[in-house]
Amino acid sequence: MSPLREPVKACLFDVFGTVVDWRSSVSRDLAAFAKEKNLPPIDWLEFAMEWRKLYQPSMEEVRSGRRAWTILDVLHRESLDQLVARYGLKALSEADLDYMNRAWHRLVPWPDVVQGLTRLKEKYIIAPCSNGNIALMVNLAKHSGLPWDVILGAETSGAYKPRPQAYLKSCEHLGLKPSQVLMVAAHNPDLKAAKAQGLHTAFVPRPNEYGPGQTTDLAADPACVDLAVRDFIELSERLS
Amino acid sequence: MSPLREPVKACLFDVFGTVVDWRSSVSRDLAAFAKEKNLPPIDWLEFAMEWRKLYQPSMEEVRSGRRAWTILDVLHRESLDQLVARYGLKALSEADLDYMNRAWHRLVPWPDVVQGLTRLKEKYIIAPCSNGNIALMVNLAKHSGLPWDVILGAETSGAYKPRPQAYLKSCEHLGLKPSQVLMVAAHNPDLKAAKAQGLHTAFVPRPNEYGPGQTTDLAADPACVDLAVRDFIELSERLS
Repeated sequence: MSPLREPVKACLFDVFGTVVDWRSSVSRDLAAFAKEKNLPPIDWLEFAMEWRKLYQPSMEEVRSGRRAWTILDVLHRESLDQLVARYGLKALSEADLDYMNRAWHRLVPWPDVVQGLTRLKEKYIIAPCSNGNIALMVNLAKHSGLPWDVILGAETSGAYKPRPQAYLKSCEHLGLKPSQVLMVAAHNPDLKAAKAQGLHTAFVPRPNEYGPGQTTDLAADPACVDLAVRDFIELSERLS
Repeated sequence: MSPLREPVKACLFDVFGTVVDWRSSVSRDLAAFAKEKNLPPIDWLEFAMEWRKLYQPSMEEVRSGRRAWTILDVLHRESLDQLVARYGLKALSEADLDYMNRAWHRLVPWPDVVQGLTRLKEKYIIAPCSNGNIALMVNLAKHSGLPWDVILGAETSGAYKPRPQAYLKSCEHLGLKPSQVLMVAAHNPDLKAAKAQGLHTAFVPRPNEYGPGQTTDLAADPACVDLAVRDFIELSERLS
């Protein structure tokens, strides 16, 4: 029996951090590329973290209305261009930069993800509700075998999380009320925003998302989390 | 080797008629419902055909700009309400009408479809590019095991086919140029519109879509079709 108050028809998932390990994936991907291209020695874990630091500010320009709707691939690329200049990386061609930017299309899921999603898919509609754009999400799913039923999130909603429209439009596109939808994330602020719109919420801890010494989102915040589980496999068991 | 001039990364599919047999499915679905509900005897094949006749005019209101964007579930329901009145069907509750309207969420694919799509998915991004809305497409896929990577089409594009935006936005959402995308349909006009936007085109005949005596779309129009195949299985073989 579902531990949630009302019957859930669909599960929406945050992706960066919750489904995939962006920090290890981006750093490994870029390190391999750097070796192939004989780039100067760089701490690619640090580079990945610096890239991620530019993520929220870049979206905030769009959320605030100061900038027209812009997909994440473009924001990621602008942030990459900044970092490439800051790290003094020269002689990178347009094709090189495009390949590096697409490291975000080649992220690797946490080990419990594919099994958990596959089981959840038997009973529920499963979809990302990510700030990543459609192409990024599709390529990532092809790369890592994520068995989504549909790609939802920022681009289909025309709004970056945690703006209400990102959650509400995703429910509406499924023809469902928010109370029929479960938002799954490793980040309490994402779940707080989803809950404020009437969605159910589930927390999955990813205590190494930011590497050793992570201090945030180590546990579910009871104020905004309906269901706390260890991983996607336990989630699929609890909802079966 | 692909028979197309340029490398294709994604295959987009028309759905009603091309992927699913709407005429048999809707009529069987409604006949079963009518029996359960003791509705008066009606020719449900005729009813399904009449419902479909209202499809293009209802979308034309939106295409022309006379009506704001409206999803197909709503247009289908308005057409159903007209037919229910015309056929003198009384005592149908809101739940009954909603169930009947969702006959379009329960359509059955032609026998070659799931095998062909499953094979195509190994090498290509596969997605509907249908005038059906996202919820309709998702529920249909869940009902019939259609293994889409992503749901594209009218609702994600904000335009009904054959308007150019329906094809162009679907390519753009995948981060692809039209020349990297193949549009597959059983309808020459759909392919003509796709080709005009630069997509490749493949024709699959569905000579019984409208029942015996069908006179249109019995064969590919060479003026707009790059590749003519017998069914989805042959398509998957030609593109492998």
